[in-house]
Amino acid sequence: MHRLEVALDERSYPIAIGRDALAQSDWIGVIRGKQVAVVTNETVGPLHLAKLTSALDAAGKSVTVVTLPDGEEYKTAETLDLIYSALLEARCDRKTTLVALGGGVVGDMTGFAAATYMRGVPFIQVPTTLLAQVDSSVGGKTGINHRLGKNMIGAFYQPRFVVADLATLDTLPARELSAGLAEVIKHGAIVDAGFLGWIEENIDALVARDAAALGHSVLRSCEIKSEVVAGDEFESGRRAILNFGHTFGHAVEAGLGYGVWLHGEAVGVGMVLAARLSQRLGYLDEAAVQRLTSIIGRAGLPTRAPEMPVKRWLNLMAVDKKAEGGEVRYILLRGLGNAVVEAVDEAIVAEVLREHAAA
Amino acid sequence: MHRLEVALDERSYPIAIGRDALAQSDWIGVIRGKQVAVVTNETVGPLHLAKLTSALDAAGKSVTVVTLPDGEEYKTAETLDLIYSALLEARCDRKTTLVALGGGVVGDMTGFAAATYMRGVPFIQVPTTLLAQVDSSVGGKTGINHRLGKNMIGAFYQPRFVVADLATLDTLPARELSAGLAEVIKHGAIVDAGFLGWIEENIDALVARDAAALGHSVLRSCEIKSEVVAGDEFESGRRAILNFGHTFGHAVEAGLGYGVWLHGEAVGVGMVLAARLSQRLGYLDEAAVQRLTSIIGRAGLPTRAPEMPVKRWLNLMAVDKKAEGGEVRYILLRGLGNAVVEAVDEAIVAEVLREHAAA
Ligand SMILES: NC(=O)c1ccc[n+]([C@@H]2O[C@H](COP(=O)([O-])OP(=O)(O)OC[C@H]3O[C@@H](n4cnc5c(N)ncnc54)[C@H](O)[C@@H]3O)[C@@H](O)[C@H]2O)c1
Ligand SMILES: NC(=O)c1ccc[n+]([C@@H]2O[C@H](COP(=O)([O-])OP(=O)(O)OC[C@H]3O[C@@H](n4cnc5c(N)ncnc54)[C@H](O)[C@@H]3O)[C@@H](O)[C@H]2O)c1
Ligand SMILES: [Zn+2]
Ligand SMILES: [Zn+2]
Repeated sequence: MHRLEVALDERSYPIAIGRDALAQSDWIGVIRGKQVAVVTNETVGPLHLAKLTSALDAAGKSVTVVTLPDGEEYKTAETLDLIYSALLEARCDRKTTLVALGGGVVGDMTGFAAATYMRGVPFIQVPTTLLAQVDSSVGGKTGINHRLGKNMIGAFYQPRFVVADLATLDTLPARELSAGLAEVIKHGAIVDAGFLGWIEENIDALVARDAAALGHSVLRSCEIKSEVVAGDEFESGRRAILNFGHTFGHAVEAGLGYGVWLHGEAVGVGMVLAARLSQRLGYLDEAAVQRLTSIIGRAGLPTRAPEMPVKRWLNLMAVDKKAEGGEVRYILLRGLGNAVVEAVDEAIVAEVLREHAAA
Repeated sequence: MHRLEVALDERSYPIAIGRDALAQSDWIGVIRGKQVAVVTNETVGPLHLAKLTSALDAAGKSVTVVTLPDGEEYKTAETLDLIYSALLEARCDRKTTLVALGGGVVGDMTGFAAATYMRGVPFIQVPTTLLAQVDSSVGGKTGINHRLGKNMIGAFYQPRFVVADLATLDTLPARELSAGLAEVIKHGAIVDAGFLGWIEENIDALVARDAAALGHSVLRSCEIKSEVVAGDEFESGRRAILNFGHTFGHAVEAGLGYGVWLHGEAVGVGMVLAARLSQRLGYLDEAAVQRLTSIIGRAGLPTRAPEMPVKRWLNLMAVDKKAEGGEVRYILLRGLGNAVVEAVDEAIVAEVLREHAAA
C-alpha cells in the first residue's frame, strides 16, 4: 500500500492507495465522534457500500447512508438538499463525519455538503473512479453545478483522509477507466517526462487494471497534482497547467452537448490539439506529438477531434475567458513534461484547428 | 467616526462606524475589480440603496443590484439561488465583490453567497439594523435556514469591510431598534460591567437614537463580540457566553412560533430568566437582577416571560442540546459583567421557571 501526505492550508491529510486500502489503512482512526454519514449513489452503493459500512460497524460507528441518484445532471442544489435533509433527520451534529463513496460527482457534492453543513463538518473521500482517485479528490475543490454554469457554486474544503481503494476500480466500466487515464497522462505531460515514459511502457497494464500499475499511476498523479496545487491553493497562477487539454476539451464537451463524450475523452482529444498547437509554435517536434497521441489512443481515448466549424471552436473556447474579461490563455508543452501558460494569436489557433479539427 | 480593526483568521478587516460612514469611510478602497453586486431587500433598497450606489458609481464601479423579498422566511436555498442566478446572468466573475445592504437576514445570505459563488468572492457588509451592526456582521457566521432547522447551512466567512452607517438606523422601526439593544445590553452583561453602567445612563439617548450614544454602543459591542470570537473563531468554547439569554430566548421563539416575538425581544426576557437562575444559584443578588431587568425594560423590551408549562420550557431548551448528545449548558452571571458557562440541575431550572415563567 502507498501512502502520501498532502499539505495544503494549515491542514495536511493522508492519501492511502492500494487494493483493500479500505480494510487496511487507518482512515477510521481520524474519525472523532461516533456518528458517520456515508454519501454514495445508486450505482456505487450496491457494489461497494458493504465493505465500507462493515469497516465502520466494526469500529463501533453509528452509520447513516445517503444514496443519491447517479449522474452529473444530479450535481445540483436539489440533490444537495437530499444530503442536508438526511443529515438533519438523522440528527447529525457538528461532530459527524461525512464519507463520500463514489466518483467525482459524489465527491464534489459530499465535500460541499461537508463544507456547509452546520458551517463545516469533517469529511473523508473514498473515490471509486480512476478520475476521482487521480484528480477530483485532490486539491480541495468541492461544489455543485448551477443551471447557468458548471461547478459555479462551491467551496475550497479539504478532506481529513482520502482512501483510494484500487479494488473498487474492478467494477468500473472500461470507458470510465480510460477517462481517468486521460488525467494520468496529463499529469505526466505537464511536469514529468519520466512518468510519461513510465505510462507509455505500462499503458497496456493500466488498461488491464494491473494493481501495481494502477497503484503507481494513482500515487504519482496525486503527488503531481498536490505539488502543483500547493502554493496555489486558491487558483491564481500555476495551477492553470492542470488545465492542459481542457480548453480544447471543454469546447468538445460543450460543442457536442455535455455527456456525449466523457470529460476524460474530451481531454484526450484536447491534449492532442494542444500538442499540435505547441508544435505549430515550434515548442514540440512531430515525434513528441506522435508519442503523446499514441499513448492517448492506447489508453482507449479518442485522438481525432469531432469536426466543428473553426468559428464555433473559437467561440466555445472563448466563452469562459470572455466572462473574466480576458484573453484565452493556452496550456502548451515546451517539450513533453514541461507545460507553460501563454496567450496565442487567434489566427494561429484557427490554423491548427483548420488542419486537425475543422468541419 | 469610529474605526475598529477585527483580527480573525489570517485576515483582519475594518469596521467603520458613524453617521454617513458610507460616504466618509474608505470602504470602496478595498474593492479590487470594477464589478460590484449589491444585495438588498425590497424594504431597505428603496430607503438606502441610492446612497450606496451613488458612492459606487462615483468610484467608477459597475454595479448590479439584487433585490430579495423581505423576511426571515426567505432566508432559504431558493432565495440564495436568486442571488447566484443574478450574479451569473450579470457575468460576475471571481473578482466581483458582493455588498450586503440590509439587516442580519440579507447579511447572512449575502455572506454565504459570497463564500460559495465560484468557491468564494470578496464581500462587504453594510448592516442597516442595530442588531446587524452590533452582532450579526461581526464573527464571520454566514448561512441560510433549512426547512428542518434554522441556520443549519452555512460557512465561516469574513467580510473585507463592515460599514455601520448610523444614518441608516433613522428609518428602522422602533421595535427593531429595541431588539438590537438587547444584544448591546447582553455584551455589557457578559463581560463589561462598566459598559453596562454606561448603557444604564444612556438608555434613553439610545432609544431616542442619539448618534453619539448609538455610535459608542455599536463600537463597544463590536469590540466585545470580536474579542470573544477571536481565539474561538470556530465556536468550540468561550464563544458560548455570547448566547447569554439565548437558551431561554430560543424557547420563547420556538414556543410562541418563530416571528411572533422578535429574536431580540425573546433574548430580553431570556436574559431576565438567566439572571434569575444565576440568583437562585447564589451568583447574583436581587439588586443586580433588578438593575439588569430595568435596563432591559427601558430599552423597550419585554421583561416578563410568556407563560408556558414548565415541561414545555424544558423540552424546548433541551432540543438543540439533545441533538448534540449533551446536557443543556447555561450562561450564568457571577456578578454583572462576568458570564460563566455551566450545566445546571434541571430541578433548579424548573423551580426558577415555575416562579417566573410558568403557565
Ligand atoms: N473537485 C475537482 O477538483 C474535480 C476535478 C475533476 C473533475 N471533477 C468533477 O468530477 C466529476 C466527474 O467525476 P467522475 O468522472 O468520477 O464521474 P462520476 O462520479 O459521474 O462517475 C462516473 C460513473 O461511474 C460510476 N461509478 C463510480 N464508481 C464506480 C465503480 N467503482 N464501479 C462502477 N461504476 C462506478 C458512477 O456512478 C457514474 O455513473 C464531474 O462532476 C467533475 O466536475 C472535480
Ligand atoms: N451571523 C450572525 O452571527 C448572526 C447573529 C445574530 C443574528 N443573525 C441573523 O440575523 C437575522 C436577524 O437580523 P435582523 O434582526 O437584522 O433582521 P432582518 O434582517 O430581518 O431585519 C429586520 C427588519 O428590518 C428591516 N430593515 C432593515 N434595515 C432597515 C432600515 N434601515 N430601515 C427600515 N427597515 C429596515 C428589514 O427589511 C426587516 O424587515 C436572523 O436571520 C439571525 O439568524 C446572525
Ligand atoms: Zn479534467
Ligand atoms: Zn442573538
